This record gives sequence, structure tokens and C-alpha cells, in this order.
Amino acid sequence: VAGDEADNELARPRTSPVNRGWHWPLVLVLLLQFSTPAASQVPDPLSTWTDGGARDVILQFVGRVTDPDSDEYVPPMARIAVFDNDGTLWSERPWIEGLFWQKLLRDAAEANPELHDVQPYQAALGFDEVFFENGGYRQAAAHVRDYVATLEREAFDNKVRAFFRARRHPDLDVPLSQTVYQPALELLDYLRANDFRVFICSGGGADFIRVIAGDFYGIESDRVIGTSYKKSLQFVEGRAVLRMTGELNTFNNRDEKAVNIDLHIGQRPLLVMGNAGGAGDIGMLSYSQGRAGPSLQLLIEHDDAEREYAYAEDDNASLAAAEANGWTVVSVKDDWSAVYGKPVPRRQRSDR
Amino acid sequence: VAGDEADNELARPRTSPVNRGWHWPLVLVLLLQFSTPAASQVPDPLSTWTDGGARDVILQFVGRVTDPDSDEYVPPMARIAVFDNDGTLWSERPWIEGLFWQKLLRDAAEANPELHDVQPYQAALGFDEVFFENGGYRQAAAHVRDYVATLEREAFDNKVRAFFRARRHPDLDVPLSQTVYQPALELLDYLRANDFRVFICSGGGADFIRVIAGDFYGIESDRVIGTSYKKSLQFVEGRAVLRMTGELNTFNNRDEKAVNIDLHIGQRPLLVMGNAGGAGDIGMLSYSQGRAGPSLQLLIEHDDAEREYAYAEDDNASLAAAEANGWTVVSVKDDWSAVYGKPVPRRQRSDR
Repeated sequence: VAGDEADNELARPRTSPVNRGWHWPLVLVLLLQFSTPAASQVPDPLSTWTDGGARDVILQFVGRVTDPDSDEYVPPMARIAVFDNDGTLWSERPWIEGLFWQKLLRDAAEANPELHDVQPYQAALGFDEVFFENGGYRQAAAHVRDYVATLEREAFDNKVRAFFRARRHPDLDVPLSQTVYQPALELLDYLRANDFRVFICSGGGADFIRVIAGDFYGIESDRVIGTSYKKSLQFVEGRAVLRMTGELNTFNNRDEKAVNIDLHIGQRPLLVMGNAGGAGDIGMLSYSQGRAGPSLQLLIEHDDAEREYAYAEDDNASLAAAEANGWTVVSVKDDWSAVYGKPVPRRQRSDR
Repeated sequence: VAGDEADNELARPRTSPVNRGWHWPLVLVLLLQFSTPAASQVPDPLSTWTDGGARDVILQFVGRVTDPDSDEYVPPMARIAVFDNDGTLWSERPWIEGLFWQKLLRDAAEANPELHDVQPYQAALGFDEVFFENGGYRQAAAHVRDYVATLEREAFDNKVRAFFRARRHPDLDVPLSQTVYQPALELLDYLRANDFRVFICSGGGADFIRVIAGDFYGIESDRVIGTSYKKSLQFVEGRAVLRMTGELNTFNNRDEKAVNIDLHIGQRPLLVMGNAGGAGDIGMLSYSQGRAGPSLQLLIEHDDAEREYAYAEDDNASLAAAEANGWTVVSVKDDWSAVYGKPVPRRQRSDR
């Protein structure tokens, strides 16, 4: 019992008012609202966003949809904001969940020494990033699924927690919590202060993200949509447990993001932010734009090799879609005056 | 645009603070919280629940899990409450979604006169409840799926809205909103006032329930888990639309309720309320009880033919599970001093 409650601490958010007992800034905001009933009450909203670009677009949009006198007013019930995770809320170089996969493979190999000389276990045991970055993850997927299928639901969560406690970012040499984008956190806070409900919709594993969504982003476990395995209910000595299976339930990427937003949320998002990188967010950005009434689409362009990473898609599909559809491109280099919450000393710089 | 916003009005809740602009009672509750930081601040909580039974169990449980000094304290992040819908939040005699199915069949027949003399369309056109109650729904399911597969996502919602605007309860002769249980509404409000996040997990259609969940229960569309069809993203004249398909995505009943609670919420519920009737809630009640730490399971027994309906399961599975596992049985007759919010004159009484 004690262990369970303690584990929940990790999932406790830093920021969201609904998840804390009492939250003085919220109360102040509430009181302020009485004198100024409409719009956007955060002291210095989006302070790490530079003036004149995406910041202005966001402030004007939120101002319009929260102003009861505006033609574009949207009631709180429909203020849904959806964010991709990798490359949108935190850095995606390297792929953090991939590092967790490597840890699962090491755990599997520890339990079975016969695997030590077999790939992908050998590469995982040797921390051979090059193997994984060059197609190894594709080979690893089936092995990861097999191992996950040996776990109860809560055991999986415990493995994720242990990973985040131990692991630091390989390039940046900081805890993974510090690879969260400060401008994204400010946008989440600003939207919540304006009665938006904020969701993650990620190609990454829902159960993986849920463990840290509260602590890193102030986002509740029930507001995380992601890739998932099928599970089955079983009774073990009279106790109901969910077992993981090795079968994929949904790969939450591209068009599936729109489908799963509907499954989990049941309405088109008013605002979506994704990033260029794997063309994964075009589906949900388009779905948001198809909303009857106002909507806003934001696409992050990773163009800052100095402060973060610079990369693009081979076919430039996401940026081309942004141009064709009038989505707002957020340049890391130009639109963000800071990337991370604390200055992050680069141990090594990579433009992978 | 205007139509879309107007439609959203129907989904606007009566009670939930997060879904309205400003809500004076919430503010008063907030201010009260400063003098008495812990526990359960609703003026007269559960006023239609009688003393000495389930009401006492609920008040004591919520008191313990919200008291920071209690060994059983549970932080707000883990205060998840899950409710079945049919027979738990509103009356399930007759099956309301079945009446909607009949409407869909009439719509299909209107578009295709060749169906007029074919079952189940003929029965739907003739409002032949007896046909449907005696196996007709089983026959109808495939026809309903076929018709749904002709619809875009939003067109389906519009059909649900039109149904609820037009339809009255066949026995009670009241709008369907008045078949909601007043004691259940009070429990939802009491839990929300104690920082619980409140979800529906129903064997009924998620998209069907979502249209009225805000208005009837103050529950957001993203907190409705239910049976669903698969959908696919398509582009129609450049606009992204989801199309319904006739393929079932999940039949959210029995064990699947636990599986889908994990898919949507990602943690075991602290409190679950279901009802005896179709054994559909045993899975999620068991899953809640398997939670490490405190939890509460409530099972409604429909034993009041005078004020509502009286019915049981042939094998008595739900009540037997309640007895074996120590779940709290909520007797409509004994635990609720009122059933509906307004006195409902019975046009005809049935003990189906």
C-alpha cells in the first residue's frame, strides 16, 4: 500500500490545478476573473516565446475563442488542446522510449543468460546506440513485445519509473525531466488558465508516457493517448490483474492519431501542436483544421542545432502541409528565446 | 459554424465547474476550503440517500481518502471514480439506446422504401417494441452497423441529438433527461467537490452517451468510455473527416470494461459504481478492488418496482460477487429516498 502511494507521487503534476490540493495562483486567477471576466489571465504568458511570430498568433487566437463577445467564442466544453510528445513537448533526439526498450532487453537478458550473445540483447547490454539507430529498433520491437507480455500491468509501470529515476539524457547529461521544452510548458499553463483541457497524443507508448506526464507536464494519466498493447483481465489468487500481451492494440501515428483522438476525446481539437520530423502529426493537424468553427494548428520546425537539434523530413511533408494549409510554423530558433527550463550544457552536439 | 456551436450547447453540463465560464457555488466552495483545508465540503451531501446504509459507507470512505492525516489518504491524481451508465446513472428499462437504434432503422427505411416490409425495419416503422424486446435487437445490430457505416462522424452525433430532442420515455412520459437518478447526480457532485475525476464506463455506445453526458451528468466527452465502432480518416474535398465503419472497435462490457479503463485512464479506479442487471460491471468492480491501497465498490440493486423497476439476473452473479467480495450494495428501495430529480408520474408501470 505504502509503495503504491509513493509511486503515485512521481505522477503528481507540477502545475495543473486539478491535481493539487489547493493552488494559490489558481485562486488568484479566479479572483482576477471576477473583475475581467473574459480572456487570458496569466501574468506574463509565453515569456520564452519571442514577439511577432507564433506567440502573437497564439495569444490572438486564445483571446478570440475565450471572448464571449467574439464571433469565434468557443465554450469551455469544446476547448480541447492536443499535443504530440516527442519533439513537441520534449526533445526526441535520441528517441527516449528507445533507451527504455534497451533497458527492457537488458532485463530480459539478465533473466536468461543464453540471450547475452544474441542480437538485439547483445547491443543493449553493450549500450551500442549505433546498432539501434541503424535499424536495430525495428529488430528489437518483437523482442520487446515478447518481454512485455510476461508482465502484469503494474510491473510495467514500475519498470518505467525505475528507468526515469536512473537514466540521464545521453547528449545533454541532465535528468530526462530537463529535456522538456520550457516554451511548451508555458503554452500548457496558458491554455489551462484559459479553461482548455490539455491532452497528449503521441506515437510513443501511452503507458510509458503516463508515468511521467503528471510530473513533467502536469497532464493526468487519463489525458494521454498513445500507442498501446492489448491487455487481458485475469484473476490471480482472487485478485483481478491486467496482463500485458505482446499484441499491438493501436500504433498511434499519422491518421490513427485522429482516429484515437475521436476514440478518447470524442470531439475535434480546437488547437493541435505537433512537429516536423516523421510526418506523424499531419493527420491530427488536418483533423483539427476540419473542425466547424475556429481552430489553430501549430507545427514545430527543429531548426536550431546550437540550442537543440536540427533535422527535417526527407520529403518535407509536414512543412509542405503547413504551407498548403496555412498552419503556423513554430521555429525553435526564431520563436523560442529559450528551449529548456534550465540552461543545459551540451556535452556533445549532434545533428543526427 | 453557428450550427456547430449551437450543437455544443446541448453538451454543456449543468453541474461541472470545469465546463462553465464562472460558477459561483464552486467559488464559495473554494473559499470555504481555506478555513477547512481537508475533506468533503458540500452543504448537504447525498441528501436523497438515506442514513445508515450505503450513504454512510460513501461518506466515511471519501472522508478517509481525502484526509491528509489518514493512513488511507489518496492524492487527487489518483482519485478516479468510474460509473456504469444504464441502470447506474439513469433507468435502463427500456433500453434507451435501443430506441435510438429503432430511429436509425426508420431513417434507413425512409431512404429506401424497399426496406419497409422487411424486418427489422418494419418493426421499427411500426414502433413494435415487443419485436425488439424479444430478440429483435440481436437481429437489428448488423443493420444498424450497416447504416452507421454510411455516416460521417458528425452526422452520427446530429442523429443522436435529434433523437434526444424528440424522444420521451415510453413508460414515464417525461424527457429522457428526467430518467437520470437524482442520488447518482448528487454522488457525482460530491465526488467532484472532493477532487475526484468522474468517468462513465458503459456497455452503451461512447458516441451516443457523449452527446448527453455534459447536459445530463456534467461529464465531459473525454471522460466517457463505451462501446465503439472503428473509424477511418478520409479527405473529402480537402477536409479531413472521420467516417464511421460498420466494424466494432470494442464491445465495452464485462472484462473489457477493465481493459478499456486502463486504455483510457491508465490507473485502477478508486471508486466504481455499477448495477446488477446484466453482470456487466463485475469486471470493473473487481479491477478497482485489486487496487493497492483503499478502494470502494458500489453495486445498485434494482428492487423498487413502485418508484423505478425491479429486476435481477437469472444467476444472481452480480449480487453474489458483491457478497463474496464485500462490495457495498445500494438498494434503490432502501438507500434512496428519491429516485428521479422531479416527481415522475407513472403512465404505466412495468416490471419487465
